[in-house]
Formats: sequence, structure tokens, C-alpha cells
Amino acid sequence: MDNDALRRGQPTCHVAFGESTALLAGDILQSMAFEVLGSRLFDDMQSIDKLSIENTQNNDQIRLRQMQILATASSKMVNGQVMDLQAEGKWVGQAHLEQIHLNKTGALIQAAIMMGAVTVLPKADQDFSALRQFGRALGLAFQVQDDILDITADTEVLGKTAGKDQQVEKSTYPALMGLDNAQQYAQQLHDQAMDALNQMQGNTQALQTIAEFLLTRKS
Amino acid sequence: MDNDALRRGQPTCHVAFGESTALLAGDILQSMAFEVLGSRLFDDMQSIDKLSIENTQNNDQIRLRQMQILATASSKMVNGQVMDLQAEGKWVGQAHLEQIHLNKTGALIQAAIMMGAVTVLPKADQDFSALRQFGRALGLAFQVQDDILDITADTEVLGKTAGKDQQVEKSTYPALMGLDNAQQYAQQLHDQAMDALNQMQGNTQALQTIAEFLLTRKS
Repeated sequence: MDNDALRRGQPTCHVAFGESTALLAGDILQSMAFEVLGSRLFDDMQSIDKLSIENTQNNDQIRLRQMQILATASSKMVNGQVMDLQAEGKWVGQAHLEQIHLNKTGALIQAAIMMGAVTVLPKADQDFSALRQFGRALGLAFQVQDDILDITADTEVLGKTAGKDQQVEKSTYPALMGLDNAQQYAQQLHDQAMDALNQMQGNTQALQTIAEFLLTRKS
Repeated sequence: MDNDALRRGQPTCHVAFGESTALLAGDILQSMAFEVLGSRLFDDMQSIDKLSIENTQNNDQIRLRQMQILATASSKMVNGQVMDLQAEGKWVGQAHLEQIHLNKTGALIQAAIMMGAVTVLPKADQDFSALRQFGRALGLAFQVQDDILDITADTEVLGKTAGKDQQVEKSTYPALMGLDNAQQYAQQLHDQAMDALNQMQGNTQALQTIAEFLLTRKS
């Protein structure tokens, strides 16, 4: 049986369109992300959102920085996936598991936040560091919650095939520390994320909503 | 039998290390390319080559331009691969085949040339257009020659599994127009590439050598 047959209640791309096409879709989405960041079209999208970008030279520097952030995070994601595959069927400690997750999903979630941050904040700004901490905690919380949902949710609610982590003997937080402790840990990470937001000057309501959504999601 | 078992006389990555690892290696090489283009390390590499890059602001603009070129070419490569898969077992005309090849391998070969060009030439420079023409002709010549070698070379010399195009009924120049005409077409494209170089002011010896190598290669 195919362990990856469903996502969001729909057949996954490789089930619906075949493996070659699905792999190529993944490849082109990666390069298209850099195309979008590098295009003038994207500048227009940003200015629609009324961000304080005033001239082309600034735009170029911001776009370059965003592409650097995305490239680094994408490489980390692959690295995390390799670590994850290597860990299948083996016992790994919490520090190791954290490294896997910081790379595999954490880096890209943090990058999504930092690509926004560089459009308006200088690196030295205190809010910039706070957002970095927020992104780190949120990225980890997301993955811990994902591990928990794989055990506690059924496939219909989850929208993807449940229980597959255990089938492939994947290292997960619930497997490592038990379900109760994993749920407490997810709450701790959520609190860390909120603490980071509370350090900030600006309006953080939207980010709080995202963090709440990730912790309370059922799918 | 695996049609993709050999490259340069060595087992291919997925044969040597397994399919998951090979796919992930492909994924990370893509993001690492953007990391390298975006890093200060790369600036140092460029200045070792004594290119006329004088200050950081220029570097940033050049790096951004290089990343844009690479992103666009990478997307084209995937697009060409999809077109290529869709054309398997079907008859396609020369114009269609040219579109496949301009995307699949042509765009990346042209991008390699243009990423160098933007480090030293402004877009309006005549040499810039000449290099673009050179890259286009060279990219197509490479693919036509690749199709020819798949038929004329044996696996040992070629270093990759020969004859596999015919096995999967792939559209190739020799299949479309016959081997002799394909060889003539490769020579025409080579001449076009040379004509483009001859329009240039600068020293084009290295580029001529590369073009000769691609046309006369046996593997």
C-alpha cells in the first residue's frame, strides 16, 4: 500500500499524475520560487501591499537577500530529509531529532518569516532577532504537532494517510518521549514563539493567529 | 534492464546510492547553486579570476542577475523535460523538437554563458547579444550531437548506456531527419556559433575551444 496516497484529502501529485511528472513539478516549483523572487512582477506585488520599498536599488538588495534566505533554507530542508531517511528504524535522541526537524521543516517556516522581515527591518533591529526566534520556535512546534497528529488523528480528518510514521519506524517526538510529553513540548514551543512576539514593537496579531492555528490544527 | 545505469563510465547516482538519495542530491544541488551565487565566497572566487568587479553594490546587482538567469533556465530545463516525456512514442516535427531541446539542455548551456557575460558586459553591449546567439547555437548543437552519439557510439566509449533513445521511442534529430542530415545540422549549428563569436571584440579562444570540443566529442 502506498503510504503517501493522500494530502488534504486529495490524491497526492504522484498518484494523480505519475511519478515522473510529480518529481518534475517539485523541481520546477523550486526554480519558479527563485524566478518569482527575482522578477519585477514580484516588486509590484510587494508594493501593492504598501511595504516601504522606495527605489529599485533597495528592491534589488532585498530580492537578493530573500533569494539567499530561500536558497539556504531549501538546502537545509533537503539535508533534514536525508537525516530523516537515515534515522528510519534507528533510535535517535532528542537533540538529533531536533536537528532533523529544524532542517526538514523548521528552516523553511523560519525562512518564510525572515523573507518578509528583510523587506522592512534592518538586520540590527531588535524586532529582526525576535522574528528569527519566533520562526525557529514556530517551525519546531509545527513539526512536533505534525508528529502528534500522525498518531492522534484519523486519515479522514487529517487529510493525509495517518499512522505512516510508525509504519516506516520514523523517529518522532511521541515515539521518543511519549504522547503526553510531546504535547507538553509542543505547548512549550508555542509559548516560546509567543514570548518572542511579545518582545516586538510592531503589531503581531497576524503572526499570533498563525501560531495559534498551527498548534490547534487537526489536519 | 535499467536504461540509465551508466554516466561517464560510472554507475549513475540512483544505482550507486538508491533512488531517494539520488533525488535528494538533485534537489540540493539546485538550491546549492543559488546559495553559491548568493554568497560572499563566490565574490572572492570571482575576484581571484580578476574580473572587473569593483564594489559590493555592483556585486549584489550581478549576483541578483545571475540568480535570475539561472532560475529562468532551470525552469525551462524542467519544462523541456516534461515536453520530452510527453513526446515519447509520438511523431514530433523539427520546430517542436527544437523547442524541446532549447528548453531541456539549450537554456542551461546558454545560461552558463550569460551568467559569465553579466559579470563584465552591460546588456546593451554588442558582445552581449553575440554571446546570447553563441549560447543558443551551442546549446542546440550539444543536443543534436548527443542524439547522434546515442546511435553511433557504443556504451563503452560513450560512458553512458547507448541506444536508449530508440528503446523509449524518444524524438531525436536522427530519427526525424536521418543520421546524415542530423550530422549536417550539427555542423550548421556549430558554424552559427562560430559566426556569433567572430562578431565579438574580445578574445574568444576559450569559447571556440569549448564549441570544438562539443562537436567533436565521442562521449
